[in-house]
Amino acid sequence: MIIRRLAVSILSIGVFAISTSVFANEPIQPIKAVTPENVEVAELGKMLFFDPRLSKSGFISCNSCHNLSMGGTDNIPTSIGHAWQQGPINAPTVLNSGMNLAQFWDGRAEDLKAQAGGPIANPGEMASTHELAVSILKSIPQYRAQFEKAFGSEKVDIDRVTTAIAAFEETLVTPGSRFDQWLLGDKEAINKKEERGYKLFKSSGCAGCHNGPAVGGALYQKFGVHGTYETTSTAEGRKGVTGKDSDLNVFKVPTLRNIELTYPYFHDGAVSTLEEAVEIMGKLQLDREFKPFEIENLVAFLKTLTGDQPDFKMPILPPSTNDTPLPQPF
Amino acid sequence: MIIRRLAVSILSIGVFAISTSVFANEPIQPIKAVTPENVEVAELGKMLFFDPRLSKSGFISCNSCHNLSMGGTDNIPTSIGHAWQQGPINAPTVLNSGMNLAQFWDGRAEDLKAQAGGPIANPGEMASTHELAVSILKSIPQYRAQFEKAFGSEKVDIDRVTTAIAAFEETLVTPGSRFDQWLLGDKEAINKKEERGYKLFKSSGCAGCHNGPAVGGALYQKFGVHGTYETTSTAEGRKGVTGKDSDLNVFKVPTLRNIELTYPYFHDGAVSTLEEAVEIMGKLQLDREFKPFEIENLVAFLKTLTGDQPDFKMPILPPSTNDTPLPQPF
Repeated sequence: MIIRRLAVSILSIGVFAISTSVFANEPIQPIKAVTPENVEVAELGKMLFFDPRLSKSGFISCNSCHNLSMGGTDNIPTSIGHAWQQGPINAPTVLNSGMNLAQFWDGRAEDLKAQAGGPIANPGEMASTHELAVSILKSIPQYRAQFEKAFGSEKVDIDRVTTAIAAFEETLVTPGSRFDQWLLGDKEAINKKEERGYKLFKSSGCAGCHNGPAVGGALYQKFGVHGTYETTSTAEGRKGVTGKDSDLNVFKVPTLRNIELTYPYFHDGAVSTLEEAVEIMGKLQLDREFKPFEIENLVAFLKTLTGDQPDFKMPILPPSTNDTPLPQPF
Repeated sequence: MIIRRLAVSILSIGVFAISTSVFANEPIQPIKAVTPENVEVAELGKMLFFDPRLSKSGFISCNSCHNLSMGGTDNIPTSIGHAWQQGPINAPTVLNSGMNLAQFWDGRAEDLKAQAGGPIANPGEMASTHELAVSILKSIPQYRAQFEKAFGSEKVDIDRVTTAIAAFEETLVTPGSRFDQWLLGDKEAINKKEERGYKLFKSSGCAGCHNGPAVGGALYQKFGVHGTYETTSTAEGRKGVTGKDSDLNVFKVPTLRNIELTYPYFHDGAVSTLEEAVEIMGKLQLDREFKPFEIENLVAFLKTLTGDQPDFKMPILPPSTNDTPLPQPF
């Protein structure tokens, strides 16, 4: 037993030493799998994430717009809310979102827990209230039992609800991408074209903002440094949070992890292809007109950032009871 | 090896002999697990079942209204369709639906394959067309590869799409309920109250229509034999299919399997509780006013019909390509 532990320790040190030396000078770091601090809290969060009873209609769940079968997004320009209202902005992926410096495109929520309460009570999204959502969950004995397992007592309140959803979302990381394998030393994991794309990604300045383990998410940046992005979107970016004119069109830099899955692109979701997105980013952010072969290489690189997708059993939700407030779909 | 096979054979015969003798005289038979004839076809069907790209908006999948986390239903009176249109009828559960004599409340589709094509092209539901859905799937290489695995060639057409969805749906059976355990000989699997409920279920006539492995689904029956069911629904039942006046308000008898999960009840989804549903059925179908304790026993029995729910990993869907027709959510 002691010998085995020792061997594991030596192995761990060895891997760590190799790993850090390999990617120490790279602007992107590999993603590490996340083990939840409290498995029962995360399990509860998974149920809540999939439960449409958090919406007024009983039809929309977190997973409706952050669909874990589809890269944690809805793959439409802007989301569909209660009564088919058109959302004002593209739904950001929930994958790796725990690494963001803040949540929403404008960073108005400081963390996943603060974010989770937003859509539930937003009249244009799930259109419920925290009180109603809590009263629904409280009425279901299996939920009360899961709250007890997770938090030590049956009490259901919005703080626990959002804590649990956030704990589940924290686990939604996507290690194992080909690019991460390459970073970790497997030089065959990406091909020459993809590697050329990565070199250009660094040399042209993309990595100035898209860096770190999430390849983005770590800072705010003006969209349209070298020109104006034409859009019908009325989203103001950080200005909506800080009130400063200088924050107009300043958005959180989105993660490029799983970017192949999280189309369409930009805060207005107006761009469907990665090629067009890269071309626009070159012009507006770097004042550079990428040549077609450069775009091809960059896109090839970006597609190596697709990691292991969520891998769990579809949760089974406990039924409502005679005391559960009814959904109001129409 | 031969000895082991022999032992298994003897065991099988033994179990079969015990099983049939136990429930031979019961109107309800236990559900058997279904192994798909072709696993790859069913796997493709699972992907398609969860893929909202079969809808015009890119937002509604089969699973939206036949939610496998919620008893294969949407748990609202009538379903939400494209652009939040209100559906005309309650979404029947997809669980055990392969046992139905026909599909939809009025039986207008002869089987699951015929049913599967309906909602995709129904302007009030997914609002797509078969041509559009097929062209979307065709544009995605991973789908073409899965069609090849399933059917031997990459060809994508609506016949294969609906064949695959139906093959997946055939697997959605729910064995293992406490009632089935009881049928199979475990006399402790249900309690005395539940057993009294079952006896009343048989003696009062419920089992005249709700019988067989699905506890329903095997015949049509007029809703309102001894009175008129008051409803705002305009659904005509079998009359809409046959044109006969005598078929007005004649519906397929719904399965009672997992009835605890498939609320609200009846074709108009107007009744939220099992107690009220049982009371109404007693009056309108059996001309009998069940006493409160009888309703309690019947409901207790009905809740023993909840079986093992779908148990599989959430499917990961392949991304669209630059050639994929775009969703039209708004």
